[in-house]
Amino acid sequence: MNELNPLKKSYNQTKYQLAGHGKRDMRVLKEVFENVDGQLESDMYGKGQLIEDFQVKMAAVLGKETAVFFPSGTMAQQIALRIWCDEKGLRKVAYHPLSHLEIHEEDGLKELHQIKTVLLADKSLVIELDDVVQMEEGIACVLLELPQREIGGQLPSFETLEQISEYCRDKNIKLHLDGARLLEVLPYYQKSAAEVCALFDSVYLSFYKGIGGIAGAILAGGQDFIAASKVWKRRYGGDLISLYPYIISADYYFDQRSHKMGQYFEEAKELAELFNSCHGVSTLPLKPVSNMFHVHFHKTKEQMESILTEVQKATGIGFTSYLADIDENTCYVEVSLGDQYAEIPKEEVTKAFQLLDEKMKQ
Amino acid sequence: MNELNPLKKSYNQTKYQLAGHGKRDMRVLKEVFENVDGQLESDMYGKGQLIEDFQVKMAAVLGKETAVFFPSGTMAQQIALRIWCDEKGLRKVAYHPLSHLEIHEEDGLKELHQIKTVLLADKSLVIELDDVVQMEEGIACVLLELPQREIGGQLPSFETLEQISEYCRDKNIKLHLDGARLLEVLPYYQKSAAEVCALFDSVYLSFYKGIGGIAGAILAGGQDFIAASKVWKRRYGGDLISLYPYIISADYYFDQRSHKMGQYFEEAKELAELFNSCHGVSTLPLKPVSNMFHVHFHKTKEQMESILTEVQKATGIGFTSYLADIDENTCYVEVSLGDQYAEIPKEEVTKAFQLLDEKMKQ
Repeated sequence: MNELNPLKKSYNQTKYQLAGHGKRDMRVLKEVFENVDGQLESDMYGKGQLIEDFQVKMAAVLGKETAVFFPSGTMAQQIALRIWCDEKGLRKVAYHPLSHLEIHEEDGLKELHQIKTVLLADKSLVIELDDVVQMEEGIACVLLELPQREIGGQLPSFETLEQISEYCRDKNIKLHLDGARLLEVLPYYQKSAAEVCALFDSVYLSFYKGIGGIAGAILAGGQDFIAASKVWKRRYGGDLISLYPYIISADYYFDQRSHKMGQYFEEAKELAELFNSCHGVSTLPLKPVSNMFHVHFHKTKEQMESILTEVQKATGIGFTSYLADIDENTCYVEVSLGDQYAEIPKEEVTKAFQLLDEKMKQ
Repeated sequence: MNELNPLKKSYNQTKYQLAGHGKRDMRVLKEVFENVDGQLESDMYGKGQLIEDFQVKMAAVLGKETAVFFPSGTMAQQIALRIWCDEKGLRKVAYHPLSHLEIHEEDGLKELHQIKTVLLADKSLVIELDDVVQMEEGIACVLLELPQREIGGQLPSFETLEQISEYCRDKNIKLHLDGARLLEVLPYYQKSAAEVCALFDSVYLSFYKGIGGIAGAILAGGQDFIAASKVWKRRYGGDLISLYPYIISADYYFDQRSHKMGQYFEEAKELAELFNSCHGVSTLPLKPVSNMFHVHFHKTKEQMESILTEVQKATGIGFTSYLADIDENTCYVEVSLGDQYAEIPKEEVTKAFQLLDEKMKQ
């Protein structure tokens, strides 16, 4: 593949990269396990100190009664929605048109659970109170994703969250948080994870976004909800004999990075400004509200691949290894700030953006 | 727990253990990754050289067109059966009453797929040709588990397998192999994995039984079948961003142990004889046909916990850390031979069994 894709090849040869924590290679695991005691016992089918301690720790972080570790968020969230549907005796949930469940899971929710979905809000906007108030009757659960990843990581106001939460409680509709990137939005909201989660009946958090672990997710909620989720985890084949490669790395990188979300947020705003200062480039949102944003380039994908390849080769700064089409004249890339941005000398960043700006004007 | 359970405590303090490869602790992973190149790239959502190479390797071992790595056999097998049901337009499969799907998966197959199950054979026996010939109409797929784990790892003859395979092909019924322990039965059949798998339309193999990996499974079959299974893997949330902790360890221990199944088989027969030489002890099967068997003790669980605790303390040989009830007067333990048996000096094994025999007579 690399031979055929000059953009990716040039990115892989850069000295520095603007986004992320670094390559997803074996070092991510090796670093974690070098200092783990060889005699530490594996978890066993969801039991054992290793998994139980981490679940207790994450339940406390999220302010929920209890929590369970899952191999994936896809599994955790489908199960959460199924449990709330069963409790209400209604097989219908509502979420954003670009929810992970709607576009990245091969319709698992519908195929495995016959759950119908109602799409709230225009796909270019976040869900507002009105979208929830105006939705049809018979909804067991509303899922909110914070931030809304597929539109650059946008957020409703915290007041809107409070109002949606209050409305759902009044109407006896369950509210589930797709918090894959929950920690990443806390600096903007100026709230603790527990303060945000208090608005929701159940919460999912991912360990390989801002945290930068290998894989895995936590699902948190009340005792009965989590007990039911463990039964479904077994049904899905998610109750592996050993999940420790993911748990131990999740714990390690959580401790290393959960307190750095404020830094990533500030850097995201700085980096977005740099992109917006270039001719024919704009970010969505214009001013980030988390560590992520999308960059829209107002040229064709082919033109931009050529330009970014040149800039990467000339400056040693990695902008991206891929681009995706928006339409005939626009392409984009998703940027999520991690550990790498802070390692780049500021003057080299500045130079790289100057060169990008020049090439965009040509 | 250890303080409360003298049997487990005494087992943990033994110098040698009769069964298994050793403790399921962090060393299992650390040993693998110490020599893995840190710059090796992770698999990404089922793609990348790391996962694709291993899938090609396992497809060749199993003699199938192609294969896909799954986090668990539970997930892989439900999906296999669903695909065959969809192909036939029939939501009914047949398997043994003590199949993993029937007793260990919280009815995932039924709850997630509304697939009905027909139970073949008495639960104390293996499935024979007659059981298949006499089963009701409208079965999409028959699942055979080799060896039948819950009855001590028993096997039908290879001729029976050939006959069942031929019958199912004639009747256009799919035949799926629960080969969690497939490699372990090859020395008895004197066949290659591919020769056994040739009788089946699809095959699942586990990497944490005889192979002794961390977790994970392979599902193998034809191109269309595996393509469909990848869609379902995504739906289940099994298409993790990174499965490499399981893949690399599966590969490592496969290379280390797949050729040792003959040794484990011979040792299982030797060890079963030792158990059968003791008063009030018998194995199921009497003569093992793989690396595994069950040991039935004709005393109460409480009596046996006391006896085995004494023997383990006195000899330093670990028999078991747990016992399960069969009825009021009988309890049992499952034994699977691994690397540990060969490490024990023969005279110490003999002494331990002499002491066990003495205590059983009291």
